[in-house]
Amino acid sequence: MARWQDKVKELTPAQAIVSYYFIAIAISVILLNLPGTHQKGVEVPFIDSVFTAVSAVSVTGLTVVNISETYSVFGIVMLMLVLQLGGIGVMSLGTFVWLLVGKKIGMRERQLIQMDHNQHSLAGLVNLIIEIIRILLLIEFIGAMILTFYFLKYYDSFSEALLNGVFATISATTNGGFDITGESLVPYFNDYFVQIIVMVLIILGAIGFPVLIEVKAFLSNKHPNFRFSLFAKITTVTFGILLVVGSVAIYLLESFHSFKGMKWHEAIFASIFHSVSSRSGGLTTFDITQFSEGTNVFVSAMMFIGASPSSVGGGIRTTTFAIAILFLINFARGKDNIQVFNREIHLIDVFRSYAVIILAIFMVLISTILLTISDPTIPIGSLVFEITSAFGTCGMSLGVTPNLSPFGKVLIMLLMFIGRVGLISFIFTIGGRAEKTKYHFPKERVIIG
Amino acid sequence: MARWQDKVKELTPAQAIVSYYFIAIAISVILLNLPGTHQKGVEVPFIDSVFTAVSAVSVTGLTVVNISETYSVFGIVMLMLVLQLGGIGVMSLGTFVWLLVGKKIGMRERQLIQMDHNQHSLAGLVNLIIEIIRILLLIEFIGAMILTFYFLKYYDSFSEALLNGVFATISATTNGGFDITGESLVPYFNDYFVQIIVMVLIILGAIGFPVLIEVKAFLSNKHPNFRFSLFAKITTVTFGILLVVGSVAIYLLESFHSFKGMKWHEAIFASIFHSVSSRSGGLTTFDITQFSEGTNVFVSAMMFIGASPSSVGGGIRTTTFAIAILFLINFARGKDNIQVFNREIHLIDVFRSYAVIILAIFMVLISTILLTISDPTIPIGSLVFEITSAFGTCGMSLGVTPNLSPFGKVLIMLLMFIGRVGLISFIFTIGGRAEKTKYHFPKERVIIG
Ligand SMILES: [K+]
Ligand SMILES: [K+]
Repeated sequence: MARWQDKVKELTPAQAIVSYYFIAIAISVILLNLPGTHQKGVEVPFIDSVFTAVSAVSVTGLTVVNISETYSVFGIVMLMLVLQLGGIGVMSLGTFVWLLVGKKIGMRERQLIQMDHNQHSLAGLVNLIIEIIRILLLIEFIGAMILTFYFLKYYDSFSEALLNGVFATISATTNGGFDITGESLVPYFNDYFVQIIVMVLIILGAIGFPVLIEVKAFLSNKHPNFRFSLFAKITTVTFGILLVVGSVAIYLLESFHSFKGMKWHEAIFASIFHSVSSRSGGLTTFDITQFSEGTNVFVSAMMFIGASPSSVGGGIRTTTFAIAILFLINFARGKDNIQVFNREIHLIDVFRSYAVIILAIFMVLISTILLTISDPTIPIGSLVFEITSAFGTCGMSLGVTPNLSPFGKVLIMLLMFIGRVGLISFIFTIGGRAEKTKYHFPKERVIIG
Repeated sequence: MARWQDKVKELTPAQAIVSYYFIAIAISVILLNLPGTHQKGVEVPFIDSVFTAVSAVSVTGLTVVNISETYSVFGIVMLMLVLQLGGIGVMSLGTFVWLLVGKKIGMRERQLIQMDHNQHSLAGLVNLIIEIIRILLLIEFIGAMILTFYFLKYYDSFSEALLNGVFATISATTNGGFDITGESLVPYFNDYFVQIIVMVLIILGAIGFPVLIEVKAFLSNKHPNFRFSLFAKITTVTFGILLVVGSVAIYLLESFHSFKGMKWHEAIFASIFHSVSSRSGGLTTFDITQFSEGTNVFVSAMMFIGASPSSVGGGIRTTTFAIAILFLINFARGKDNIQVFNREIHLIDVFRSYAVIILAIFMVLISTILLTISDPTIPIGSLVFEITSAFGTCGMSLGVTPNLSPFGKVLIMLLMFIGRVGLISFIFTIGGRAEKTKYHFPKERVIIG
């Protein structure tokens, strides 16, 4: 036992994260292939089985099989378990790495979750995971209660309402994006209550765990002189701006296209829901293959940006995007530093955002070229959509993923894995050293990627 | 006269450049519409006339009309004049701004072209333009001589060979990319001599004027202790690497596609030629609509990168790309500075490359979305190709530009203009101030964008 712990301690954070995901995927493949998980007579090829496991562990939601037609109730329960495993793992690892690497900046959060700076890191990780599970289960318990009772309106039996309510809650909160309706949330296109609950759950999952514990600390009133961290402010404001810009853009792009003939409130809800979902949720209330090419490009870009760091979402992350924009504005104005919320962004974070963006663009570009070779019959717009959806661990799909070649499926799996692990940004998080610079405001660190 | 000069002196460099291009476009529209410039019975709509002028002044080469079917010999001579005007203007302004803004780094070049640092800037500009015209005309004179005599093999009369030889030379050297054959250089698909001459001319135009004068100084042996500047080294090495990578990639992507059935040397030359041409030349020896979607994406990316600064090419420029890559490699290795050729890249140049890349990506993305709305029938891959071709002032085309809606044509014109002016990067060049940082190697400035 001691030797095993020593081995774990010897791993670099990057190695630990990659190892965690490999083990999690292996366990998920087993869980999803236990006797009785499949419906009678349904055979799932091994590659599709692995695909579902990778998609579930990375809480992406892209699928090559129809869940409701493939898995039994037992199988669906296993899938929920894997989503929980994925969601908790993602939040824990993301936050833990941040605390570990970000040294000084993590102080506040470390205090908020009673994690001693000098304490053994494995013990700290355990504390962190317990806190995350507590918060996640609390959110999910409330969500599942509401949806289950509300779903009695749709389903004849309580057990059916329960299954659908709990699954929708877990799928939304972990941003898993899977569905057991066979058509995502399209059956609830006119049910704004369901949509609002689901959107709240998606946002709570995607806003980032550090934000959740800060809000909890703020509400609890137990910490005198509490103030929100720069990270919490930037990621929340960026998240909000992306939601608004996304909703308006989708509305404008589609109002004379697929939204034509819809009632005004239907069009508005469809815009808002898919804007929320494009951050990382991946659920849809509408057949998004009806979207115009312009909307596809726009949503692809939104999925590429992704959700907050230390959340269940992927992509380059909101803070990376925010710093790029802040940098651009400040640079154009001739300023040699970025000031926001009375703080100055650290130079190393500008560097990180640059590195993450460049590498992410390369990845999308090379993936696109490879997929045009392996899957030449699929339109390029759809390929880019699925690629950014995988990298952003969003899971929205133009429906072409099930038709991908084996090579294409493996590539999408790899992108979900990379989008999840944030390997790239992580490498830079480890690799980068702070540069000494003079500063005017006190500096404060922000997570990139 | 004095008052006019005062007015000019009051312009910021950005205003001066934009003004120059507006005036140049207006003059070009007039030149291309002089009586007798069109073939009998041919009517060119005003928007197409402006399009041709913008394309020629920006030496891009995208066309909405077939030059050989539209213009008379007199019109073609006018077009050559406009291309020269464009090419000289582009080189002069780019280099001049660099000398003006880059203060210390321009010293060497300023000495090489006998431009005094304290001398009046208009006088310096005149010296610079004279030097550029001398070098450009020398290159073109040699090129035209070779091609004209060689073309006697193809054309019956000397005057025909002369017209085609001179036009091809000017189109290649200024990287104008226009043709009077009606099908670019496709007639010379099997003539490697013509292709080699044209490639050399394209490269001489696209490698950047500062490189040309340094090479001239080096060869003249007149300057003791001469060494090539960091800028010349970076831009030339990057240019070379892009040529090699481009050739190999095009060969691999097309060898089982459009190159199938070609002789090995045909495939190799087609790969090399279009790799060279994608930097900024825009001429083709092959019907590139036959390229696979993967190649289209790859070539789009190459055109987006573009040519050297202070050359006749556009795009984000080779140095911007080089610094992004060098930054990425150094950052991943945990280094907080970029060392190359025993010099350290200045922080401000890293910032500039970041700003240029982010803004360029935004521009391409927004342009793509707008074109999918204005021209919904054109495949998105083709739209992105024409957009990057315009921004890179490359001029390669999948043939959809003539079919664009008026809005689409205006947008492409705007992109050619922006790609040419480098307005964005220029704004940052003016806007950005150097940050004070410690350095280990002596620092030296490099042009971004
Ligand atoms: K998802
Ligand atoms: K060109």
